[in-house]
Amino acid sequence: MDFMGFKVVDEDALRQLERDLMAYGCAVEQLPAGELNSCGRRVRFQAPSGHHFELYADKEYTGKWGLNDVNPEAWPRDLKGMAAVRFDHALMYGDELPATYDLFTKVLGFYLAEQVLDENGTRVAQFLSLSTKAHDVAFIHHPEKGRLHHVSFHLETWEDLLRAADLISMTDTSIDIGPTRHGLTHGKTIYFFDPSGNRNEVFCGGDYNYPDHKPVTWTTDQLGKAIFYHDRILNDRFMT
Amino acid sequence: MDFMGFKVVDEDALRQLERDLMAYGCAVEQLPAGELNSCGRRVRFQAPSGHHFELYADKEYTGKWGLNDVNPEAWPRDLKGMAAVRFDHALMYGDELPATYDLFTKVLGFYLAEQVLDENGTRVAQFLSLSTKAHDVAFIHHPEKGRLHHVSFHLETWEDLLRAADLISMTDTSIDIGPTRHGLTHGKTIYFFDPSGNRNEVFCGGDYNYPDHKPVTWTTDQLGKAIFYHDRILNDRFMT
Amino acid sequence: MDFMGFKVVDEDALRQLERDLMAYGCAVEQLPAGELNSCGRRVRFQAPSGHHFELYADKEYTGKWGLNDVNPEAWPRDLKGMAAVRFDHALMYGDELPATYDLFTKVLGFYLAEQVLDENGTRVAQFLSLSTKAHDVAFIHHPEKGRLHHVSFHLETWEDLLRAADLISMTDTSIDIGPTRHGLTHGKTIYFFDPSGNRNEVFCGGDYNYPDHKPVTWTTDQLGKAIFYHDRILNDRFMT
Amino acid sequence: MDFMGFKVVDEDALRQLERDLMAYGCAVEQLPAGELNSCGRRVRFQAPSGHHFELYADKEYTGKWGLNDVNPEAWPRDLKGMAAVRFDHALMYGDELPATYDLFTKVLGFYLAEQVLDENGTRVAQFLSLSTKAHDVAFIHHPEKGRLHHVSFHLETWEDLLRAADLISMTDTSIDIGPTRHGLTHGKTIYFFDPSGNRNEVFCGGDYNYPDHKPVTWTTDQLGKAIFYHDRILNDRFMT
Repeated sequence: MDFMGFKVVDEDALRQLERDLMAYGCAVEQLPAGELNSCGRRVRFQAPSGHHFELYADKEYTGKWGLNDVNPEAWPRDLKGMAAVRFDHALMYGDELPATYDLFTKVLGFYLAEQVLDENGTRVAQFLSLSTKAHDVAFIHHPEKGRLHHVSFHLETWEDLLRAADLISMTDTSIDIGPTRHGLTHGKTIYFFDPSGNRNEVFCGGDYNYPDHKPVTWTTDQLGKAIFYHDRILNDRFMT
Repeated sequence: MDFMGFKVVDEDALRQLERDLMAYGCAVEQLPAGELNSCGRRVRFQAPSGHHFELYADKEYTGKWGLNDVNPEAWPRDLKGMAAVRFDHALMYGDELPATYDLFTKVLGFYLAEQVLDENGTRVAQFLSLSTKAHDVAFIHHPEKGRLHHVSFHLETWEDLLRAADLISMTDTSIDIGPTRHGLTHGKTIYFFDPSGNRNEVFCGGDYNYPDHKPVTWTTDQLGKAIFYHDRILNDRFMT
Repeated sequence: MDFMGFKVVDEDALRQLERDLMAYGCAVEQLPAGELNSCGRRVRFQAPSGHHFELYADKEYTGKWGLNDVNPEAWPRDLKGMAAVRFDHALMYGDELPATYDLFTKVLGFYLAEQVLDENGTRVAQFLSLSTKAHDVAFIHHPEKGRLHHVSFHLETWEDLLRAADLISMTDTSIDIGPTRHGLTHGKTIYFFDPSGNRNEVFCGGDYNYPDHKPVTWTTDQLGKAIFYHDRILNDRFMT
Repeated sequence: MDFMGFKVVDEDALRQLERDLMAYGCAVEQLPAGELNSCGRRVRFQAPSGHHFELYADKEYTGKWGLNDVNPEAWPRDLKGMAAVRFDHALMYGDELPATYDLFTKVLGFYLAEQVLDENGTRVAQFLSLSTKAHDVAFIHHPEKGRLHHVSFHLETWEDLLRAADLISMTDTSIDIGPTRHGLTHGKTIYFFDPSGNRNEVFCGGDYNYPDHKPVTWTTDQLGKAIFYHDRILNDRFMT
């Protein structure tokens, strides 16, 4: 995986997070404005899980989903394809989950929304949110560092998910699994592979959370159900 | 499989069908009223595929789905579980598809809504309807006579199908596949096994047909997609 | 209203219905093949309610909804607008409901699916079906003969109905009412006016019926709920 | 209206907000723990619009919607009625919108998600969020201070909204309007009156926002569409 970027609210917040990362002992790399098209300066760091993340405050504002800022219609009429509303989250495979958890919760303001605990009570998966969303980023324990499992795009409804699955067939796209539901987050999901071989998800629903909610816990003896709520078994492919 | 029964419109229709079956050379067995609870006399015959069917005209009328006959509400408020609207169809495995097709279309008034043809143009699956429904009964070629593949119950919506899949998980019921879509009929579906091991389907949507529509044809090189439109492969279990 | 046409299954059926109409005492007018584009000969008659109907057996077969006859995808990818699946039914205003009922049930093969009875038990609305559909044509008592209330197009889902309502707004189309549900048929509905001022309906769901079901009865003291199940009042506009 | 309460994340946050309110010049009233059942101490203040608000940090934690904290099923099986997921927001009528806006954005951490501007550019409605939700509280200009327009409960889907509308009819509950869509927030909605005469809303969907999004603006010449996207007119009742 290259990197995952988070937009922060403004330059003040970016400077503060930069200082906080360095104070925490996390090396920070500067990337100048304009290196990415239409993007301001970026602050880059590596999580203990091996993944690179970037923060930035400035980004060209293209509005909401193609709608006017004034008297916007219910949805853009010229959408094609799956009509994803937004990029939603990414799920990473890597090690050093506790150190990664500390970095994300103590420095970056995330909170633990859901987790998977093994029979010894060790956290083997952590779903982190900084909003009311089910998760903004998630990590699953894996001996190899820095791997990407999937990126996820948000659809509005379970009907849209059916439409997406139909489009996957109509375009001879490789499907992994779905439409189905996750136990974790209770979101509805399809996984499929884009032509470069990366796993993508389209996702809708998913429980809402607040920072003062207790995290939801799944136990590894129910891992099949936690991942695929209906089939209740993991396909081998999912682990890669 | 024991038998599948069809209610006919009245005693006149039953007598006519009885005569038509005998004229066609099909042996007919009489079963007296009351042998089945709340059911009038039944006329029993065996299709060339090996399956037994029964016709009857009288059945205790229990109304529509638990609703009043006068000023009925939109749905019954005390439903539990999957809330099936009706028994919808059954799919049979057996041989002698052409002779079975003749019996159902020439004597019983069915018409061919969809079919699967192999590379030689031989019909290996026939979906028969006598209404605007996608099918009322279907036959798939199988060397063994008289086997039942599944019985299917109609749900109203794709949302109801999600709810049914959730209930399958909550009740530790064995799922076969779904929620997904069929290519044949384009209906949305879940297959699951009841505690006695029989495959059941809950089903919604499905194309509408009229007797003067041309049958829809699927070819066996697309059989995976014909059966499971999203996965586009048959699981081995489905063939049993 | 000009006329409403029904396609019959074949030329034999057309000839039989022609004879039956004449035997019943109904004047029949002949319209030659080709007078309507891509349409065979038509048999025209007037119902006692004042409406004209036509029957025909031959019509250019354009297939199902733009899908292939062989290995058809789930839906046509290039649809725009509300994506109506089919013309569904029409509702007429007129008088002489009993004589019209007789003609449709005794000669044309319809059955009574639903009705509205006034406090004297007089039928003031009759919903007639010749399939498992909630209705194929309906008549509401009105002192003036031969008026059209609306024509209705079938959508697949309640989600499609929301999308249709959104499109009505986006295109500045005049809406009458909806999205809502009918008590009669329990179908979900929107009424809107096309630029020529005719009321159109998009409709989904709706109870299924069989000819041996007892008709569902609504009483005029519940007429608001029978027509608009959620608001439970008739808007004055509806009666025009 | 009595008051609307917001739970804050912890006692530290409560103390900070208390200090911030006082520093801003807003009188603060203390209410002891236990005065409300299962609720810690509350801090009460009045907004310039005339409405009272309360903040508290401690509340008995009853879990998520009746689900287990460990291996939770997709939804609670014993729900009855409309199955609201959560209290979502309230909409207030009152004056002094600019001062109220300042208090909510400068002291309490809300941001402006949507607004209605009149022909002079004066803000006559402000929708404020402190999450990714479409709004957590909204104010509409009205000459009288301190009035409640409605409280809103979140449903999951447009199907759930249909079910809610059906239940409103089945229970002879007074409906105001719906199911329909709002232009503002694009949420789907039903308004109805509880037996005490208060307007309630059930609501689903609604655009997501982030604090760095530009506010969406509706103009008063499109107010009908802004409020009721499909009908595009305000019923008089709505203004009361």
